[in-house]
Order: sequence, then C-alpha cells, then structure tokens
Amino acid sequence: MKQKIRMGMVGGGIGAFIGGVHRMAAALDGEIELVCGAFSSDPERSRASGAQLSLPPDRCYGTFEEMIRREKRLRPDKRMQVVSIVTPNHVHFAPAKMALENGFHVICDKPLSFNMKEALALEKLVAKSGLIFALTHNYTGYPMVKQARQMIRHGELGPIRKVVVEYPQGWLSTKAEDTGSKQAAWRTDPSRSGIAGAMGDIGTHAENLAEYITGLHITELCADISTFVEGRLLDDDGNVLLHFNNGAKGILHASQISAGEENNLNIRVYGEKGGLEWRQMEPNTLIVKWLDKQTQIYRTGVGPLYPESLAHTRIPAGHPEGYLEAFANIYRNFAFCVRARIEGREPDPMYTDFPSVQDGVRGMQFIEKVIASGKSKSKWVGM
Amino acid sequence: MKQKIRMGMVGGGIGAFIGGVHRMAAALDGEIELVCGAFSSDPERSRASGAQLSLPPDRCYGTFEEMIRREKRLRPDKRMQVVSIVTPNHVHFAPAKMALENGFHVICDKPLSFNMKEALALEKLVAKSGLIFALTHNYTGYPMVKQARQMIRHGELGPIRKVVVEYPQGWLSTKAEDTGSKQAAWRTDPSRSGIAGAMGDIGTHAENLAEYITGLHITELCADISTFVEGRLLDDDGNVLLHFNNGAKGILHASQISAGEENNLNIRVYGEKGGLEWRQMEPNTLIVKWLDKQTQIYRTGVGPLYPESLAHTRIPAGHPEGYLEAFANIYRNFAFCVRARIEGREPDPMYTDFPSVQDGVRGMQFIEKVIASGKSKSKWVGM
Amino acid sequence: MKQKIRMGMVGGGIGAFIGGVHRMAAALDGEIELVCGAFSSDPERSRASGAQLSLPPDRCYGTFEEMIRREKRLRPDKRMQVVSIVTPNHVHFAPAKMALENGFHVICDKPLSFNMKEALALEKLVAKSGLIFALTHNYTGYPMVKQARQMIRHGELGPIRKVVVEYPQGWLSTKAEDTGSKQAAWRTDPSRSGIAGAMGDIGTHAENLAEYITGLHITELCADISTFVEGRLLDDDGNVLLHFNNGAKGILHASQISAGEENNLNIRVYGEKGGLEWRQMEPNTLIVKWLDKQTQIYRTGVGPLYPESLAHTRIPAGHPEGYLEAFANIYRNFAFCVRARIEGREPDPMYTDFPSVQDGVRGMQFIEKVIASGKSKSKWVGM
Amino acid sequence: MKQKIRMGMVGGGIGAFIGGVHRMAAALDGEIELVCGAFSSDPERSRASGAQLSLPPDRCYGTFEEMIRREKRLRPDKRMQVVSIVTPNHVHFAPAKMALENGFHVICDKPLSFNMKEALALEKLVAKSGLIFALTHNYTGYPMVKQARQMIRHGELGPIRKVVVEYPQGWLSTKAEDTGSKQAAWRTDPSRSGIAGAMGDIGTHAENLAEYITGLHITELCADISTFVEGRLLDDDGNVLLHFNNGAKGILHASQISAGEENNLNIRVYGEKGGLEWRQMEPNTLIVKWLDKQTQIYRTGVGPLYPESLAHTRIPAGHPEGYLEAFANIYRNFAFCVRARIEGREPDPMYTDFPSVQDGVRGMQFIEKVIASGKSKSKWVGM
Repeated sequence: MKQKIRMGMVGGGIGAFIGGVHRMAAALDGEIELVCGAFSSDPERSRASGAQLSLPPDRCYGTFEEMIRREKRLRPDKRMQVVSIVTPNHVHFAPAKMALENGFHVICDKPLSFNMKEALALEKLVAKSGLIFALTHNYTGYPMVKQARQMIRHGELGPIRKVVVEYPQGWLSTKAEDTGSKQAAWRTDPSRSGIAGAMGDIGTHAENLAEYITGLHITELCADISTFVEGRLLDDDGNVLLHFNNGAKGILHASQISAGEENNLNIRVYGEKGGLEWRQMEPNTLIVKWLDKQTQIYRTGVGPLYPESLAHTRIPAGHPEGYLEAFANIYRNFAFCVRARIEGREPDPMYTDFPSVQDGVRGMQFIEKVIASGKSKSKWVGM
Repeated sequence: MKQKIRMGMVGGGIGAFIGGVHRMAAALDGEIELVCGAFSSDPERSRASGAQLSLPPDRCYGTFEEMIRREKRLRPDKRMQVVSIVTPNHVHFAPAKMALENGFHVICDKPLSFNMKEALALEKLVAKSGLIFALTHNYTGYPMVKQARQMIRHGELGPIRKVVVEYPQGWLSTKAEDTGSKQAAWRTDPSRSGIAGAMGDIGTHAENLAEYITGLHITELCADISTFVEGRLLDDDGNVLLHFNNGAKGILHASQISAGEENNLNIRVYGEKGGLEWRQMEPNTLIVKWLDKQTQIYRTGVGPLYPESLAHTRIPAGHPEGYLEAFANIYRNFAFCVRARIEGREPDPMYTDFPSVQDGVRGMQFIEKVIASGKSKSKWVGM
Repeated sequence: MKQKIRMGMVGGGIGAFIGGVHRMAAALDGEIELVCGAFSSDPERSRASGAQLSLPPDRCYGTFEEMIRREKRLRPDKRMQVVSIVTPNHVHFAPAKMALENGFHVICDKPLSFNMKEALALEKLVAKSGLIFALTHNYTGYPMVKQARQMIRHGELGPIRKVVVEYPQGWLSTKAEDTGSKQAAWRTDPSRSGIAGAMGDIGTHAENLAEYITGLHITELCADISTFVEGRLLDDDGNVLLHFNNGAKGILHASQISAGEENNLNIRVYGEKGGLEWRQMEPNTLIVKWLDKQTQIYRTGVGPLYPESLAHTRIPAGHPEGYLEAFANIYRNFAFCVRARIEGREPDPMYTDFPSVQDGVRGMQFIEKVIASGKSKSKWVGM
Repeated sequence: MKQKIRMGMVGGGIGAFIGGVHRMAAALDGEIELVCGAFSSDPERSRASGAQLSLPPDRCYGTFEEMIRREKRLRPDKRMQVVSIVTPNHVHFAPAKMALENGFHVICDKPLSFNMKEALALEKLVAKSGLIFALTHNYTGYPMVKQARQMIRHGELGPIRKVVVEYPQGWLSTKAEDTGSKQAAWRTDPSRSGIAGAMGDIGTHAENLAEYITGLHITELCADISTFVEGRLLDDDGNVLLHFNNGAKGILHASQISAGEENNLNIRVYGEKGGLEWRQMEPNTLIVKWLDKQTQIYRTGVGPLYPESLAHTRIPAGHPEGYLEAFANIYRNFAFCVRARIEGREPDPMYTDFPSVQDGVRGMQFIEKVIASGKSKSKWVGM
C-alpha cells in the first residue's frame, strides 16, 4: 500500500487565494496528504482554518517555527515530510530556510524571496542540504507549454529569432489596495512585496515562461517601468526590450492596469522555420505557424505529441484541463521526486521537470535588473 | 474539526478512464475521502488498485456486494457513507440498488442504467429510501452553464424559440473496438452499453444539457440514427429534430464518427430578445448575442454574474477551470448535501444543484425514444 | 485594347441592397461596364438612379422590356451584351426570358425564379439559346470554398459521411416587414417571394453550398418548418435532416429568427479520414481536422492550395477578402466566359466555375420539397 | 448625370501588386474612372498594361512627365483630374511634385517619400497649391478602426494609459530578394526604399494606426532594430518602446521575419475605464473590454455604432468587408472631396477623413527617428 507524502503548509488560512490553490493542486492526484499547517500568524485563526481542512487541532500550529519544531519530534511515519510555503513574498525566506535546515523538502510560491540576498542564501542552502526544492512557477506545468519547449528543443522551429511574451491584467486599474482587497494590499506594499509590483508578481512569470519555452537566457534588457495609479507605491506596468544569448531579440510586457484583461499571459516565439503561439487563458491550444505550409493547431492530448507533453495531461482530448491541473503538475512531479528520494531511487526523468531554486534566483535577478533598467538612462542593462 | 465524507467506489480500477476522473473530482475540494473500493471484479486487481490509491488491503473488496456488506458492519464513524459507481452501464443498477437498500447515499455515472426498467426501479428506490442520489452529468457543473441557465430563467433572452445542441466526437471513426481499446469495446457492445451507442454515451449529455439550460422539456423528436463503421453493433451517429413543451424547435446531433472532433459538446439557444452560445472545449466563455446591441462575452468569474455561477468557480478570472473542476462541482454539491443530511439540517440551496435520479430516468427515456424514432417511418415520436 | 463587357441592369434602383452589391461586384475587376439599366418600374426613379450611376438619360429605361427592345437596336459595338437581374424573385423570370430570347447573356440573382415551372422553362430556354447564364449563389465564390471542394474532390477527407450546414440570421426576429423595411417586406410576401421565406432566401444558399462543396446530391429530406413571428406569412425557420446520394447523412438549418446572429452561413463536412469547417463570416479561414494528426488552418493565399482556390483570390495572404470579392468572382468568371464566347474561343476552364441555371433549378426543387416535407407527416420526402 | 472623377495612374503595370489594389479600390464605388496612365518606365509595357485595362493607346504614356504634360493640354472635360501614384518609394516625390505644380490632385501610396527632405517639400507644395492630397494608409479605412477612434475620442475608455501595436509578417524570413521576388527586391533595397526596410514598409502603418486610433502623438521612442537575414541591406525587424504626449506608454513592433505570420497588424489600447483590441486579419470585429462589466464584441454594421463607422461600410452586417473595401474608403472619400472642390462646395465632413500629407510627414519622421534610435546608445530619442 502506497503511502501519501505528508505535507505541512505555511500560510493559506481561510480566505487566502493562493493557499486554496496549492491545496487543490496537492490533493488532485492522491499523492500528497495535508497533515498539518501554520495557516496564520494568529494561532486561533490557524486552528480554525485547520479544522475547516479536517485537520486535528494538535497539528494546527500558531507559527511555522512551532510547526517545524514540533513536527520534527513526531514519529517518522507520522510527521510531515514536505513544507509548502504560500505566504506573501516577505515570508518565504524564513520558513524555507528553517524547513531546509531541519531536513524537510520545500515547495514554495513565487517569487522566490523578498530580495536577491535571500534568494542566493536559499540557493546555497538547498545545495548544501541536498533536499528537494520546487518553486510554483505553475504556468510551465501546462501540457502545451511542455510541447512548445520540446518542439524548440528538437529544432522544429529552427534557430530562434524573436520572442514576444505578454502578461496583461487589469485588476489593479483602480487603487484596489485602498478598498480592502488583501490581494492588492500586499502586492503593492514594498515592505511585503519587495522592490517590484507587477514586474515581480507577474513579470517574473513571463520571464520564466520565455526562458523555459525557448531554452534561451536573457542577457540584456531595456525597461520602461511605470506606475499609472496615483499614490501606488510600486510599478503597475512595464514594457521591456530583451536580448537573448543566441542573438534573438524580444519584448516582454506585464501590466496590472490593462483594463479589462483577466490573466492573459501569452507568448509567441519565432524561429527561422516557423513560429508558435500559446495563450494561458486557452491553455490546451498551441498554434504552430510555418514558413511554407499550413498553420497547425496542436491540442492537449491530440495526435502526435512529445512524451513530455503527454506525461502532463490527465484526461482525454477535448476535456479541457486548466490552471489547477497545471499547478498540480508541479506538485505531482515534486511528490514523485520526494517519493523516489524516500525510497532511495532515482526519479523517473519524465517527472523531474519542475521549477527549481535556480529558476527562483533567476526571477529575483530579473526583478533587480528590470527595476534598475527602468530607472536608468542607459539603454541596455546586463542580466 | 470537520470530518470528510467517507466514500467507497465500485469500479475504476487502474487504467480505467472515468474512475480516475471521479477520484480527482472527489478529492479536489477536500470534502470527501476515499476509504474503500471494489475496483474490479477480480479481487487481486481490486486490491492492487486500492494499494496504488493508498488504501489498506482490508478495505479493498472483490465485489460490490462484499464491500457493502462488510462496510455496513464497521463502526459508524469508520464505515463508508456514500458509494460512487463508475462501472459500465450494465453494472450501474445492481450496486446502486444494494447501496440504497443498505442506507448508503449514491453518486453514479451516466447514463443511469442499462434500460428503462432499471431506471424506474431506481427512481422508486431513491424515493423510498430518502437517500441522496447524484448522477454525474458533469457538463452541467460548469459555471458558465449555470450562468446560461439563470439568464434564461430570469427571462433575459425572452421566450425561447430555438435550440441547437451538438456533441460531435471523432474517436470511433475507425473500428477501435477491434483494436484493443477498452473504452471503445464496452461502449459499442449492446450487452454492456444497452440499446444505444453514441446516443446513450453522449446523446444523453446533449439532451440533459439542453433541458438543463433552457428549463424546457422535449416533447417530441424525429431521429435519423446511423452506424457508419461497418460491423459496429450500435449507432455511432444521430441527427434529431426536437419539439419543446413551450413550442420551441430544436436540433440535437451527436456523433462519434465526426473525424477530427475531440469532445465538442456545444449549445446555442435563441429567444425572442437574444441568443447564447456555449462550447465545452472553451468552457469559461459564454457568448450572448442581442437583437439590438453588441454581443457580450461572459467569462467565468468576470463582471456581474448570477450567484449560482459564482458559487461554482474556485479561482479568479482568467485562471481557466476545466472538466475536472466542473465534475468536482457535482461531487462537492453532493458532499454538501450528504453532510447536511448527516448533521440533520437543510443544505444551502445554492449547492443543491446536481443531476438527480429523475434526470437519469429522463436520459433513459431519451435513449428509448430516439432509437425508436430512428427505426420509425413516422415523423414524430412523443417523449 | 481590351473592350469591357457592356452590361444592362434590371432592378437595383437607389436604396436597394442587392443592386449595389451586383454593381460593385461587376466593377471590381474592370471586366464589365454598366452601360444601361431599368432600375425601377417608375421611369422617373429609374432615370434618377441611372444619373447617380453616371449613365446618360437615354440609357435609363422605364421597364426591362423597353431596355431590351431599345438596346437591341443599338449598334453592336455600343449595345449591352449581358443583362444583370437584381429584382425580387417574382421579377426574375420575365426579364431573363426576354433577355435570352433576344440574344443577351444573363446573370441573375437567386433563387432562380418564383416557382418550379418558371425554373424549368428557363432551363430549357438557356439550353435552346446557347447563351451563358449565371446565378449569383455568391458564397461559392470564396477561395476557401473552392479549396474545400477540391480537397473533397481529390479524396483528402475520404468518403463523406456527415454534413452539417447552417445559415442562422436574426434580423427577422421581430416583425420588420411591418416597420418599413423593404428588404423584409418582399422577402416575407408570398406574392413576391414564392412559397418559401427563409428556406428560399437563405436555405437555398445552404443547400447549394453543401452540394457544391461535397459534390454530392441530396436525395431525401425531412423538414420541420416554422413561422415564429406572429402574423408572418412565410416560414422564418427550418430544421432539416438530409440523406445524400452516397449514403452520407446531414443536417441543414436556416433561420431568420436566431436572435443576435448576423449572416452566419457555415458548413462542416466529415469524411472517413478527416473533417473540414468553413464559416462565411471569417471566410479566409478553412479548418481541416484529421483523424490522426494535428488540425490545420488553411488560409486564403497561404501555403500549398489547389489552383482553383488561388485563381479566385486577388491580394496577398493576410489581406482579408470579403463578400464583395467572392461575389465579384461570379461576375468575373461570367465575364471571362462571355468574352471567350464573343471572341469565338473556349474559355479558360479555371474560370468557368459559376452557378448555372441547373443550380437554380436544383434550388427551386429544394424549396418545393422542403416546404412539402414541412407539411408532411411522413418522415422522408424524395428530392 | 453625375460625372466620374477622371484619374491617371503612375506605376502599377501588369504584375505589380499595389497598382491592382489601387485600381480595384478606385473602381469599387463608381466614383472614379481610370482614363490614362504611365504604368511603366518602358513605354511598350505601359501601353500593353493600358490595353489590358481597356485604355486607348493615346492615353497610355511612357513617363509620368509625358502624362502630366499631355493630359494638361486636353479639353477640361476630358483630361484627368487626379493622379494616383503607386510606384516604389523613390518615385513618389517627382510625380507628386509635378502633378501638384500642374494643378492635379494627388493620391499617393505610403510612405510619403524617399526621405524627410522630400516629405517636407511635398507638405509645402500641397499647402501652396491648395490641392487635395491623400496618402493611402489604408488600414485607417476600416469601419471598426473608425469606431475605435470615435470611442476613444468620446472618452468611452477614459484617459489612455497603454498602447500595444504590432505588425508581424513572415514573408521575408528567407532572402526572398535573391529569388526573383520584385516585391522583396525593392523593399530591401536602400536605393529604392530609403533608410528603412520593415520599419518603413509596415512600421509606418503601425505608427499611423496607433496615432489615428488614440488621437495621441508619440513624443519619444526607444528602438531595437535588427536585420536577421544575412546579407540583407535593411532592417527586417524592430521592437520599439513609446512615450505619448499625454503620458501614455506603448510598444510598437513590426517584423518581416516572424515566420508563419501573414499580415497581422493589430492594436490594443487601454484606458482608465476599459480597453479595446482590433486585428486587421479579422477586421470586422472590435473587442472592447471593461473594468467592471462584460467584454463586448463590436462588429461592422451591428448595433449602435458611431456614424463615422457606419459611413464607411457598404453592406449589411455579417457580410464581411475586407482590405479592398477599406482601401476603397480612402479613394471614395478622396473622390468626394475632389468632387466637392470641382463643384465649388464644402465636402460632407463625414467623408473628409483620409490620411493627409501631414500624416505622410509624420511617417517619415517616424522612420528617421526609429532608425536613429536603433543606432543610439541613449535610451530615448525625441519625435
């Protein structure tokens, strides 16, 4: 009888958005069981949240420190094995550090940390601990994103020349942080979010997606960073020119004041032989355009696809898979790797693909450079 | 601390498609816990499947009879509370009957049963037992389907005149039942599927969706039923004219030989003031067209929506929800109602909306009438 | 120096919709010159219309009889060579007959005539006269419709199994014929339109498109014909089951009460190997779906296409061509054939493809049969 | 009887792409008659082209100088009234200048001229002559572009914050200029095209469209200009950050190496209250998104639209209008204005909207600045 991986959660009390997402993603495949949590810095709220989640009171902790300390003392076959961190940016580092130092694998929301210093410290800690660390850049979990990456990797589009990656949202078009939105409040607060607003929250997703799909690295950027909503403390829009390590050029723009846009992450990549286009809001479709033949519509689970794509879909073609399923792919692969580690074997390479602490460091570097470029009068800033 | 609803499963051993879907749908919201199963008629396979699902061997049964008998003898706080039936059509009736007779609530895959006689017997049993019975016509679980139903119910489109509902698939364009596909084999086998092939498997979904969204009843139909693939024993295509109880006219067609189609269930409804269009493969979009103003794109979670729609979405706008989430809405509402029953209170009316045994009887009636009409030389067959 | 083909027009005075369309279509390619017209039964209005069209007063006639009589007496190098008939249905036959009897080629709006008797008489007259007769079933003029036809003709989709052709409009959802719309008035008036409303006006387009693209013939139909708007004298909606001569099945529906629909003619055809889909409102796109490989998007002028498709496009890929260009393809091919006739040579076979008087007879037969079936209690009516 | 405006053409001999487009656009509405031309610098070819166009030999000239000189001597009621210039960029200035100096109105292809000096000289000449000058930035001729402009002008979207305008093409992904493509040859040749390739040919369309729709002016830009195809002499790709005069930010990118793209000009504009999106390849659709209500689909001719939009559509809703019709809107408005001038009256203000010589100067300025910025190490270049 297979044992589920036992997980503790930091953050994600009742009413939080991303905590619920992580729990649904973790539950979907029956690989992981939530066994404890420090859901809130208020012990009462933490316990109430845990009760709602069918957790016994003695596994609902008031702080992550308490959770890690006390779980560590439980019997090995009972205590949590992994820690999921779903707090705002400024509370990623401390629980991740403590978890790693106490032998727990970690899965952490993005961006990796509050600043670059923390990011580099975590990178070192992960290396030193030998533990597994996953970062939930969930958009790389979609089957059609896997397909896109493999098509480029196998040279189907030829050498890449141009990349256009966009992440427009409209939900911060007005000053939502003043009207009681918790989501808006911490994301626009430099003391919780860090030096970047939109560029950290969603710009890093765009950067990660572009590098993941193309397999290229951004080497230079030139950014025009704006705050459109009066009185807002962080950026809510950014337009960025990109240079890639192979000579490709690109554009990245992310915005939270693109009025009427939902969550419209999308990417187009053009090579010498063809181009591709993927849109997160219709994630099961990948358009592939060719120089000299008809455009093709690749669809999740349909026709010949790379095994890396097929391995990340759960249901037959035409049964749409969405955001939670892509998110769950990160959790499932993380769980597979943790299980292999526990069982002392190598994980199946097909399921080792999830964002790492290095991807997190890269994201923090993007944040630092794009904000610096926004303030600079020089055209290009190295990255 | 909230207790999860404890569920036993009939069918759905390793490799089955729909069993996995039911389990993911049941797991998503943390309301239900799988505690036992009779996953296969082969006890060895049943146990192997259960072990994969982290179930202890003593809760993996060789037959549904054994499961129901032995679970009934367990302590009330341990034994299963609901039975999920995910077997082929010919094995719906017996486990449903036995479960109801032994006091277990039931959630059952569609169509309800092998034939009309069984359906009517189940309807009586449910009434007599006072237990909760849900049928997984999952497509009504989508938030935009709820929105469509409410818009029509509130008269936004005016009296309905015309309905076009389509369910084209292409996966049985060749004789897949001869090439080892288990899914194809039982669906095209009259001894397991019943008198209908495509019309039972997917035609009933189309019928259910049309009646659910419009709130109307089909009163007459005129069907042209075909088997295109040589040697196939059941229909693989059907085109049907419809009359509704308010005088509206309609078309229903379902097909498994529409080569190149995935799972393209879709519906258009036209009233005196406007029309709407919904497509399962892009389920978060509902197009609403008006006589005298611009077409609108309704989207899951965006702008003013009916509470019935908002109550069935889990994540913010632009984060696509798919088939599993819609399926999970059936399970969640079923679980909410079971929990209310256990706790001796009325369920929240917002969450009582799931397909019932009556919907199942209606589907069986559709199957009988549409097949009869296909063989008839008279134009209209009453329903 | 190439001489333009000289054309006279019957109907199409100022304010008429379809007259202007015919003139723009005729003008587009510089092959045809409008030299005279009987634009209205009111001579004053006819002259006023002609003056607006830069025609001299002596070439603006009060009746088509006068036009044909007087033009015939003009010098051969001055008089009109072809007659374009753009009047309501009940005024197709008389001018077409007289034009043919006096040696003029004819291009006529659809449907061919007021009733079947007239249609058959015209068919005979055309045969007897040896003159060229074109019917403006303009939707077959689109390049992607040509491509679809050729793909099927060359067997790319395999034997055809299923056809779904739709023509929903919403503009007659209210009783527009009572509110001063000339277009609505004659189309809903049996004394001008004939026995059919929607089925004649747009149902014939759907029938023509289905037979044109598939190369098949409808052999039987079963129709459900309705008039939804109270007091309307002709049908405004029809749902029809179809049988084709090769055993294929189909559905045709046409409607003028599909509220919110513009002019949404579309067709899907499924064969053993694949299916295709074309929508008039996005006419430069043809979706081709396959059993075992990725869906393709064929686009006007892009990639490998059949020469019949390429011969009917004027501008490079991505420069959208619309309704007028498709309409102009009928006029241009008609003009090419007339010019070849005048010059005593065979026309280029690439440009002889336009709807003929036989297509018109077929359309009239469809009208008769579909209306008869609508009234019949028998299921199938032969056609 | 209305007289058609008599037009002479410079360039556009047989086989040229844009010459045919201009002729079809000029012919469509029956307002303009082609009476003469200098179609080629080779008199023989010019005459052959004219003969094909049904022009008498004595109105087919070997040079534009000859055409202007000889037409001027014809009787006023016979000679041409306007000159259409459809040659490559380096042959715009001389014929335009001579036409204006001899009293002929001019309609000229874009970009206005070979360089800024010529552009400014033409601007002065037009002012001095008092003649009418139109530039065929045809994409502003679409009805939905007019609608977008009016919506913004009337404040429906609130103050504009962000503009994203794109013009990807893929047809120069390989070195087509070496394989006999005349279109590719002159566009990549600095001696005929000027200092810019893609940025001149299509970047100016994007710039013009953005300023036209928003009513704003670009004040600064930061460009990354590339030549991807080895050995090509001019740019084939450019990514540009924009600042507008009201504080809005923007992105413009144009490319001829975006493999697989046809002619995908598109624009998105976001204001404080909503955003809009228009795509040239589906030009009859305008998507309008709102902060707090459902997205709307505006369609050519459907529902309430601004009169400026309705005035530029010819056929009923759902009958798609394309590139030629938009192009014809420039010609028609030009013809209306010329006719009003001839008749000594003010033109109807609804039809005076066409790109002017000032728009042409603006386009040349864009070319100069964007190429300069591409070479600069400073971030922003004023414009």
